Amino acid sequence: MSRTGVWLVGARGGVSTTVIAGLAAIQQGRKDRVGLLTETSLFENCDLPPLDDLIIGGHEVREGSLLDSARAICADSGSLGHELIAEIATTLEQVDSRIRPGILFNAGKAILSLEGIRSDCVEQDPAQAVARIEQDLREFRTENDLSGVVVVNLSSTEAALPPHPSHGCAEELLQQLAQGTTEPFRSSTLYAIAAAQVGASFVNFTPSPAALLPATCQLLEEQGCPFAGSDGKTGETLVKSALAPMFFQRALKVLSWQGYNMLGDRDGEILSCSENRQTKIESKGELIKKILGEDVHSQVSIDYVPSLGDNKTAWDLIHFEGFLGHRMTMQFTWQGCDAVLAAPLVLDLCRLMEWARQRGDAGLQQHCGLFFKSPHQSEIYDLSSQFQALTDYLQSCRQQADPSGSP
Amino acid sequence: MSRTGVWLVGARGGVSTTVIAGLAAIQQGRKDRVGLLTETSLFENCDLPPLDDLIIGGHEVREGSLLDSARAICADSGSLGHELIAEIATTLEQVDSRIRPGILFNAGKAILSLEGIRSDCVEQDPAQAVARIEQDLREFRTENDLSGVVVVNLSSTEAALPPHPSHGCAEELLQQLAQGTTEPFRSSTLYAIAAAQVGASFVNFTPSPAALLPATCQLLEEQGCPFAGSDGKTGETLVKSALAPMFFQRALKVLSWQGYNMLGDRDGEILSCSENRQTKIESKGELIKKILGEDVHSQVSIDYVPSLGDNKTAWDLIHFEGFLGHRMTMQFTWQGCDAVLAAPLVLDLCRLMEWARQRGDAGLQQHCGLFFKSPHQSEIYDLSSQFQALTDYLQSCRQQADPSGSP
Amino acid sequence: MSRTGVWLVGARGGVSTTVIAGLAAIQQGRKDRVGLLTETSLFENCDLPPLDDLIIGGHEVREGSLLDSARAICADSGSLGHELIAEIATTLEQVDSRIRPGILFNAGKAILSLEGIRSDCVEQDPAQAVARIEQDLREFRTENDLSGVVVVNLSSTEAALPPHPSHGCAEELLQQLAQGTTEPFRSSTLYAIAAAQVGASFVNFTPSPAALLPATCQLLEEQGCPFAGSDGKTGETLVKSALAPMFFQRALKVLSWQGYNMLGDRDGEILSCSENRQTKIESKGELIKKILGEDVHSQVSIDYVPSLGDNKTAWDLIHFEGFLGHRMTMQFTWQGCDAVLAAPLVLDLCRLMEWARQRGDAGLQQHCGLFFKSPHQSEIYDLSSQFQALTDYLQSCRQQADPSGSP
Amino acid sequence: MSRTGVWLVGARGGVSTTVIAGLAAIQQGRKDRVGLLTETSLFENCDLPPLDDLIIGGHEVREGSLLDSARAICADSGSLGHELIAEIATTLEQVDSRIRPGILFNAGKAILSLEGIRSDCVEQDPAQAVARIEQDLREFRTENDLSGVVVVNLSSTEAALPPHPSHGCAEELLQQLAQGTTEPFRSSTLYAIAAAQVGASFVNFTPSPAALLPATCQLLEEQGCPFAGSDGKTGETLVKSALAPMFFQRALKVLSWQGYNMLGDRDGEILSCSENRQTKIESKGELIKKILGEDVHSQVSIDYVPSLGDNKTAWDLIHFEGFLGHRMTMQFTWQGCDAVLAAPLVLDLCRLMEWARQRGDAGLQQHCGLFFKSPHQSEIYDLSSQFQALTDYLQSCRQQADPSGSP
Repeated sequence: MSRTGVWLVGARGGVSTTVIAGLAAIQQGRKDRVGLLTETSLFENCDLPPLDDLIIGGHEVREGSLLDSARAICADSGSLGHELIAEIATTLEQVDSRIRPGILFNAGKAILSLEGIRSDCVEQDPAQAVARIEQDLREFRTENDLSGVVVVNLSSTEAALPPHPSHGCAEELLQQLAQGTTEPFRSSTLYAIAAAQVGASFVNFTPSPAALLPATCQLLEEQGCPFAGSDGKTGETLVKSALAPMFFQRALKVLSWQGYNMLGDRDGEILSCSENRQTKIESKGELIKKILGEDVHSQVSIDYVPSLGDNKTAWDLIHFEGFLGHRMTMQFTWQGCDAVLAAPLVLDLCRLMEWARQRGDAGLQQHCGLFFKSPHQSEIYDLSSQFQALTDYLQSCRQQADPSGSP
Repeated sequence: MSRTGVWLVGARGGVSTTVIAGLAAIQQGRKDRVGLLTETSLFENCDLPPLDDLIIGGHEVREGSLLDSARAICADSGSLGHELIAEIATTLEQVDSRIRPGILFNAGKAILSLEGIRSDCVEQDPAQAVARIEQDLREFRTENDLSGVVVVNLSSTEAALPPHPSHGCAEELLQQLAQGTTEPFRSSTLYAIAAAQVGASFVNFTPSPAALLPATCQLLEEQGCPFAGSDGKTGETLVKSALAPMFFQRALKVLSWQGYNMLGDRDGEILSCSENRQTKIESKGELIKKILGEDVHSQVSIDYVPSLGDNKTAWDLIHFEGFLGHRMTMQFTWQGCDAVLAAPLVLDLCRLMEWARQRGDAGLQQHCGLFFKSPHQSEIYDLSSQFQALTDYLQSCRQQADPSGSP
Repeated sequence: MSRTGVWLVGARGGVSTTVIAGLAAIQQGRKDRVGLLTETSLFENCDLPPLDDLIIGGHEVREGSLLDSARAICADSGSLGHELIAEIATTLEQVDSRIRPGILFNAGKAILSLEGIRSDCVEQDPAQAVARIEQDLREFRTENDLSGVVVVNLSSTEAALPPHPSHGCAEELLQQLAQGTTEPFRSSTLYAIAAAQVGASFVNFTPSPAALLPATCQLLEEQGCPFAGSDGKTGETLVKSALAPMFFQRALKVLSWQGYNMLGDRDGEILSCSENRQTKIESKGELIKKILGEDVHSQVSIDYVPSLGDNKTAWDLIHFEGFLGHRMTMQFTWQGCDAVLAAPLVLDLCRLMEWARQRGDAGLQQHCGLFFKSPHQSEIYDLSSQFQALTDYLQSCRQQADPSGSP
Repeated sequence: MSRTGVWLVGARGGVSTTVIAGLAAIQQGRKDRVGLLTETSLFENCDLPPLDDLIIGGHEVREGSLLDSARAICADSGSLGHELIAEIATTLEQVDSRIRPGILFNAGKAILSLEGIRSDCVEQDPAQAVARIEQDLREFRTENDLSGVVVVNLSSTEAALPPHPSHGCAEELLQQLAQGTTEPFRSSTLYAIAAAQVGASFVNFTPSPAALLPATCQLLEEQGCPFAGSDGKTGETLVKSALAPMFFQRALKVLSWQGYNMLGDRDGEILSCSENRQTKIESKGELIKKILGEDVHSQVSIDYVPSLGDNKTAWDLIHFEGFLGHRMTMQFTWQGCDAVLAAPLVLDLCRLMEWARQRGDAGLQQHCGLFFKSPHQSEIYDLSSQFQALTDYLQSCRQQADPSGSP
């Protein structure tokens, strides 16, 4: 038997808890597959690792249990129901036993001042921190007899990391690591390095820019690790990536695109800190100009509205010009539960990463752009083209697998 | 010199007046091309008939002048400005001189009771009506020394035409025409027949289902005429065709999609008649089920709100289910001036039709689906795929023209 | 000890179940009073019957138990939580034991074809039906040693009842009743008559126009019964009644006010029948013209969108004219859970009715207009004036009670 | 003959130009009075100064003419039409001849860097600046034989003025003025002082807090001058003041109220400077807490979106709790042309000020609260109560005038 390990960084956060709960429900027999692209006919005849063979572990820097997290979600957005939680309570405890204290390195005030942060997670020496992560990943692999491991960064959005000369080169970055320099690293950098060192795939599901530096990407590729990022595309930006191309395809001139995002919970709390918010805004903001050009007046704002919890609400105004200079408007409101939208993407990505690893596809998984707000190293931001890229990739994989098959 | 004739049926309506005014402005030196896809880089190296070579004539069943229409638009939506109208007043008069009394045949109460309908347009014998149209088209061609003519149906939405045995076969339909039977025809049917008989291209920009019957399509194809339809995709349906695929591409399950449309002016007045509205609703309504499947609860309503004039307003609610059965919502409001959105599509289509004719491409222009709410004989409703089809077509045309060119 | 009986017609419907659950929670110690106006400082020093002294019984025409209803609400809108239901399960069973088979008389297809309708509720003879209601009310009073009883009509919206000569006079209506004529009565008429006969107060919380006919009102007044209606104002109409006066108070001219309502569940199902929907639309539609004048183009539509359940969603567009004829727009979206909004109004009204009865205030309770979409016999539709009327009433009651008190 | 002078500070700005154009149109025979409360039946039998007797002059710190301003408005929001401008062109020139260079004192970077600012308007000595304003006001009065003058501050929003000991006492403030101290004054302070000195009424239609200091209010009152402010209530805040009371009147608990405002033009440009924006945000933000209490999470943001021009757009999200803790939402979008909404309020206020002066009502006009976002010295923020206050005032005025009249 060959199972795939999913190592969630931020393992008791909202998205992780929903990933864990959803997978548990499916493994215990739940039938519906809404939200999981890898379970649609698109992936027919692709032998992705089955959902039943995924096993989850992870790191967490806060106190608490998965059951606590699940119950908090039930009270907040209601996306995890009472009955569901009762049914999977045992599984939650089992996964909890595979969650270890995470690492916090150069983490910034917003994160360190979250309620319930464990002081034993704070690391001062980067090499030591990486060693601890590596050890946890290796034990996870051995104890569970895993064929492959995928590390998914689901931790809180970090503030930007100031550029450092070592960021451009794996060797230099490892030297800095060995020397114990602090500046070139944030927690997410260390996770990417550790993943590379143990041969795990790596997914940066957050916008944290310190994860996929040129140097860490080089390292992952050299170690044969598939990777993808950054920042799961789940809500307002998803809609933008579907809608902005429409204006282009009609030769309409967008004058202004204003996007207002509101959210509560820990996510919102972190983003109420201006440094961390800036990271997120930059990740969300580039799409419009990439699709519609630099002339568009485009603003993105994010506000912390505690009462909303994880029910993220966004309102966008699009002011555009048509034939003969006439001005018109469109607006939309998106009311989505972020964890519910993100969780299936995490499962999809883990299966795609492990599938790539099994097929020898190391390095950046270009065809995964549709899952991200800021697709790494890509100029393709519109959703349909991203979807097409995935479809093309699957087609070519199927042809490799069965060259005689009909196209 | 070789010019292309554009024959607008409903030549003093809002869309036609905007087409005429916009083309006049461009021919008199206006620079901006917002809304015209055929003026973007997409059409580079395609030798479409230049905008400067288009000349407009048409049919109209109401009293009045183009200048009156332009001024009414100026007072209503303001999309034709005061200065613009002053600049092109002479051209409007010239085009007016090429507008002749249209035909009304089996037209229905809603249309016949519009204010200002000319009684001399009402025809009783279908063959006589067709003969009159043909004569007008032939004179338009001769007097203006045109290489080709494109007939564009921009008249008011007709009520559905009950099925008739002759609708399936061109020969039988022409027999009915010769015998003077009324039932198989509405005005739009007769325009399509006349276009075919004189070798003109035909565009059904309205939803009127009596235009593109199997028999009229057969006739157009046999006569070497390019044609396309139906129902220009300008507002709410355009947004739907961009947005609905997003839910599919994320494996999200749309439960309900409600669309509420409000409009004033003559369009709204006609659609306040339930028979004519039904035609429009059916044209608007099929898209969601085509893209998202039959299970979606989908309703479209259209209400006449006189004060809005041509500033069509639509509000859509999308209720959908995500991972683990969680329900979420999206809503959008579209506020667009219909004539402004439609006019450049008309110009784009005329150029594409004439280009096809020159290149010997008769019959249905499949690659024009992106311009229509109900793309004729097509299952492709999502905007990006439609756009891709156009791109592919242009690419293949360029390769035919220059087989040695780089792809 | 003196308790007040609340007799809910439609006792296991969504609103009733929420009334029962909420009252149970409060009687078992729940502290928050959100939504209950009678629990605010407005009612300080008014000796309304305490919430703890209310006891509920009722009529229901469908099969099932309150626990079933509560669980269905939990699964639909989530407004009754899992823990709450567990806590009050015993109380729900107790109330269930006081719910008896209701009556269905001249009820119309939409209601009779609801799932789970008990055939033994259908009555053919109006006098016999009234007798059965009276007996149930009397037994409710005796068995529970009640000082007063308030009958609240929360049953499904009936189609309009064609006018009948007897509707204008209590005596004539009772004659028709005795003669067994069918036409002058619907279920709601019979409930109002029965309430009057046993000296109970009566609240028509639905729009059903057959309840508060001149004849039934006369009867109630003659029997010393307080009454009020019609149609609880809970959502879109509530917003309208707050917002429409703003345009008046700014001398802005509303051109069009379009209101689109969407709802699911049994309510929505009933209203998907055009006759019953018409009753509701008329109740919702009159407000705009009453506040803003007859010139406003005002439409209300109601659509059945099953997936929404009780989460009623409404979108309104207001198109208005300002200084120098300039046109502007406002729009709003209301997403409210109807039962949650209605339940506290029911409790408020029951307390006010019983208080009035105790104080000898029979007949129409004019100061209760703020609770209704169609305040009976009133021209005051704007919310603030209605609120003022209630405040003034309370003030005068307090002064009556304590003439020496400070105003 | 006795005419009333209206002295507009910022006389060629958008609001002023619309005031001037609208008054000109009315004086030249335009019939419609939409937006003017003083022209409704509310003011029947009040002998306000007639619109025909108003005459306008003012101060302006930028270059240009009223005709330029009117044409810019025509091109921007279209609220002043082409024909209208043509009809009133002569009047605009006449008013232009009564507009003199304004004063800029301690004005701040945002205002001083506006395009077209005249350097000869910048004053260094406060007493000299006041003297210049006084002289202009006196000449305006003399040359036009005016019975009274109303000074209306319509200039750009100033940054907050740091508190100064002299702000609390008229005498001390005048001493500082005489000594040439800079810190206690901004332009708006000097205008208020000058108005008081010449016996003119004063309206602070902007949020600039330096205008109505305790000291300037004292001065105005002592000099017998009516005054009112601050910040005309025209858009989002107007809606809030109508809507927030609804939640209170239903005992619903508002958790969060988020307001997002977008605007272009000079107003937006000024507010894109954080200091000036802060002034505006404070003026807009206090209402929710005043009406609904301090617990509400309430945020107001203002963004500069150049393409919108004067078509201010606001979107508000209201997240609230109902019975049993259930959470619901409401949202609204307001799309209004600010100058169109503001101009009639300015005319209404001028008539009310002059009427008060004629009747001997000096000092703060408490009953004018409904016109302002931040009603000076008032705790009444809800629109209906403000409207009631005005109604009560008019009633008492009518009774004073005719004690024998029916109430």
